[in-house]
Amino acid sequence: MGEARRTRARGGGRKSRLAARAHPARTIVPYLTRKLPPYELLSEAGLETIEQNAETILEEIGIDFCNDAEALAIWKDAGAAINGQRVRFPRGLCRSLIQQTAPTEFVQHARNSARSVRIGGPHTVLAPAYGSPFIRSLDDGRRYATIDDFRNFVKLTYMTPALHHSGGTVCEPVDLPVNKRHLDMVYSHIRYSDKPFMGSVTTPERAEDTVALAKLVFGNDFVAENVVTIGLVNANSPMTWDGTMLGALKVYARHGQATIIAPFVLAGAMSPVTVAGASTQILAEALAGMAFAQLVRPGAPVIFGAFASSISMQSGAPTFGTPEPQLVLYVTAALARRLGVPFRSGGALCASKIPDAQAAYESANTLQHAMLAGVNFMLHTAGWLESGLTMGYEKFILDADQAGMLQVLADGVDMTETGQAMDAIREVGPGAHFLGCAHTQANFETAFYRSNTADNNSFEQWEADGAQDAAQRANTIWKRMLDEYEAPDIDPGVDEALKDYIARRKAEQPDSLY
Amino acid sequence: MGEARRTRARGGGRKSRLAARAHPARTIVPYLTRKLPPYELLSEAGLETIEQNAETILEEIGIDFCNDAEALAIWKDAGAAINGQRVRFPRGLCRSLIQQTAPTEFVQHARNSARSVRIGGPHTVLAPAYGSPFIRSLDDGRRYATIDDFRNFVKLTYMTPALHHSGGTVCEPVDLPVNKRHLDMVYSHIRYSDKPFMGSVTTPERAEDTVALAKLVFGNDFVAENVVTIGLVNANSPMTWDGTMLGALKVYARHGQATIIAPFVLAGAMSPVTVAGASTQILAEALAGMAFAQLVRPGAPVIFGAFASSISMQSGAPTFGTPEPQLVLYVTAALARRLGVPFRSGGALCASKIPDAQAAYESANTLQHAMLAGVNFMLHTAGWLESGLTMGYEKFILDADQAGMLQVLADGVDMTETGQAMDAIREVGPGAHFLGCAHTQANFETAFYRSNTADNNSFEQWEADGAQDAAQRANTIWKRMLDEYEAPDIDPGVDEALKDYIARRKAEQPDSLY
Repeated sequence: MGEARRTRARGGGRKSRLAARAHPARTIVPYLTRKLPPYELLSEAGLETIEQNAETILEEIGIDFCNDAEALAIWKDAGAAINGQRVRFPRGLCRSLIQQTAPTEFVQHARNSARSVRIGGPHTVLAPAYGSPFIRSLDDGRRYATIDDFRNFVKLTYMTPALHHSGGTVCEPVDLPVNKRHLDMVYSHIRYSDKPFMGSVTTPERAEDTVALAKLVFGNDFVAENVVTIGLVNANSPMTWDGTMLGALKVYARHGQATIIAPFVLAGAMSPVTVAGASTQILAEALAGMAFAQLVRPGAPVIFGAFASSISMQSGAPTFGTPEPQLVLYVTAALARRLGVPFRSGGALCASKIPDAQAAYESANTLQHAMLAGVNFMLHTAGWLESGLTMGYEKFILDADQAGMLQVLADGVDMTETGQAMDAIREVGPGAHFLGCAHTQANFETAFYRSNTADNNSFEQWEADGAQDAAQRANTIWKRMLDEYEAPDIDPGVDEALKDYIARRKAEQPDSLY
Repeated sequence: MGEARRTRARGGGRKSRLAARAHPARTIVPYLTRKLPPYELLSEAGLETIEQNAETILEEIGIDFCNDAEALAIWKDAGAAINGQRVRFPRGLCRSLIQQTAPTEFVQHARNSARSVRIGGPHTVLAPAYGSPFIRSLDDGRRYATIDDFRNFVKLTYMTPALHHSGGTVCEPVDLPVNKRHLDMVYSHIRYSDKPFMGSVTTPERAEDTVALAKLVFGNDFVAENVVTIGLVNANSPMTWDGTMLGALKVYARHGQATIIAPFVLAGAMSPVTVAGASTQILAEALAGMAFAQLVRPGAPVIFGAFASSISMQSGAPTFGTPEPQLVLYVTAALARRLGVPFRSGGALCASKIPDAQAAYESANTLQHAMLAGVNFMLHTAGWLESGLTMGYEKFILDADQAGMLQVLADGVDMTETGQAMDAIREVGPGAHFLGCAHTQANFETAFYRSNTADNNSFEQWEADGAQDAAQRANTIWKRMLDEYEAPDIDPGVDEALKDYIARRKAEQPDSLY
């Protein structure tokens, strides 16, 4: 991507050559395996206090399970106290339900098995941003997103080795009817990529459509036994799970598919303003949601999701890249580890409207800390602008470059003899230079991460090249990538079956705006 | 800084009111005290291997002490083997010399004692960038720096609570003769700020001038017993200390003043390409330099400096914000802790020519990791552009905002009852919001870091405000700050004495370009 490329080649191996040029000598891996210990920012005693306080919330205050009589009945059977929609839980019940049956890590299969990902433990999976109704590019400025944009981001993600997962609603295709667009989104993930993908959660029927389409790709028997899609199930913080999200949760869980059980907290509005308070509430909400999934189907894979932002106490607007949410990230990651479930958080979060310095500081401040916290599934790794309202083409490219750097960080320090490099130091000695020494010659291809968006040239060369900023360079890159994109192969029979299913489902209902 | 300010007030308390507005409710501290544990990225065994390898370098390969016969004689007396300019050290000699007499932490006094800083242990001191011959602003573009720019950056640093130290060569005043500009630089730090400052190292005489000026401010007796200035002593990596730097080192050490003993490594050129190899060489160089300072004057305060960058293996240009130097940072910070000396590293390092997204990603990637690594003295915290060739006005403001965030990160998680916020969660309960609750009302002023450069408004509001990027907002801020600057008081007799000394020294020698 970052390499000059003037001529176009054709042929079967082209995509892999392109990928190799993008990150010349670094191994392409389907997901990261961290060799770094997670950073334990808060003491054991502090974490225990938060866990006890979360149990107090569950026992004394309770969690609302709204507009879902079945959910209340399930909880009653499990021994919880029901009062209206309020569910109160005996201390330790939720934790025990989760620890008895929820997997500590699991594989989400991709239709290309080489791209299947392992979620949990020391593994980290990076996925693009999710949910923006707008897109921004240097060419178009800001405008509503369309299905063409959606396909573009699926394609760009497919071509980006540092992103391991195709994501879900990479942007909202607002040109399509609300009640049908999920079919086109899921199809795009399947057809234009072969990386794993997320499904629809906006109604139980759309979640069922997601699983039905996946069955056409993977086969009924395989889907019955394996995770092939993930649903993002957000809490209505504080302490509320609503019927829509519970409906989607139940569909995914009953099919043995994974869910991210994700409190979504703008601290100060939807949780207390303090780090410990927000983390406690997040834990309580996540415990109730994940335990519910285990009651629906014991063993259903769940991911402890934590999305926390602070807000401007003047305007109420969300803020990103500030230190308080980073602290929440470390605390909740540790809580997930102690519970024994995979953890989702992080991303290139920012409030900036454009891919400027604000966007980059804010994004880096979350990306780097999420990696050290030991995140297992990072949604919003690339593209996020304007507090999630906008998916940026240039921002996507810049963030994806940062995602590549996270791989190197996760690899940690090579302490082999080659890594120790004592031969090089002996060969060169005081006052000389290492450029030509045998060790450097043998290792320079893989020695340093090569950014495809940074300009490291001299000032004079940079000026001669047009004095471009990072966003302008990124603009060139995404256009070249889309120009060079080639879809992965798909079995024509499968493709036909997918199209037939979608056509039938679209014909069954009129277009709708909700 | 970030607050709207249309009218100008006068009077004694004005500067403190300004500072209070800049960071409304956060306590202004003279330096940070980290409540976070340092992140131990590399295992104990890994660190031990690096320490053993560094001793092998010192014993078998040796370090060159160039153009300084006195240094060689000092080492011979201490038991080292001398061969030409090459010094080879019995295993453990350097470590033992350092651990016997070098302080693990020390106070650098400011002329305003409320601004004295503690360097070492859990404390972190943030200083602006150092050494750029150019400046950049949105108004002037890139041009050579002048003494007016120098004064401006001293003033801006003085007005920035998140920067604890006035720094040293905040930019090179290239409009002044090389052999005299240090006098104007030191005077500017003393006159236009009352924060602690760094001195000249370019010749031993200029280091002596620095100490002489300090004595006029602090008094001879005080300077004899206390640290009032710091010299930045860079190694000529690999494995070389040159006569100029050794000359300055000796002056500072003999006066009991502090030195940063700083290997400066562009890995691949001046060290091996690997993280462990570069860290090993840095440790060996730093050990030799810090031990030498102890031989010159036992107990002379030294700071283990590590400056590591990777290079582009295509062009040889330095690169910043990439993951490999971050790994070096964690490793060398741990090595300094094990040795028991303060550690200097980090900064808002970047290769970008302008304060764009590249600059911000790169800067954040070093700033955040340096804090978690447990840095004690962070040079280059604000202003750095173009691999250190340029000091940016807007970049300074953007970085200083990030420095403010580091304070919050360093404060860690409040686990008091207020921090736990269970009362707030009880008061609000499921489905409601926290904006008006008693806990939020009591704590919102201090709850979240308030950026003075980020725009968190809606897209529509941001457009109505002129659709500015972060650099444009920073441009407004630094101009307003300089407009509002008022110099701290100074004893007129001291000021006179400083001016007399400088006038006499300038008269003693013709202008020179070296």
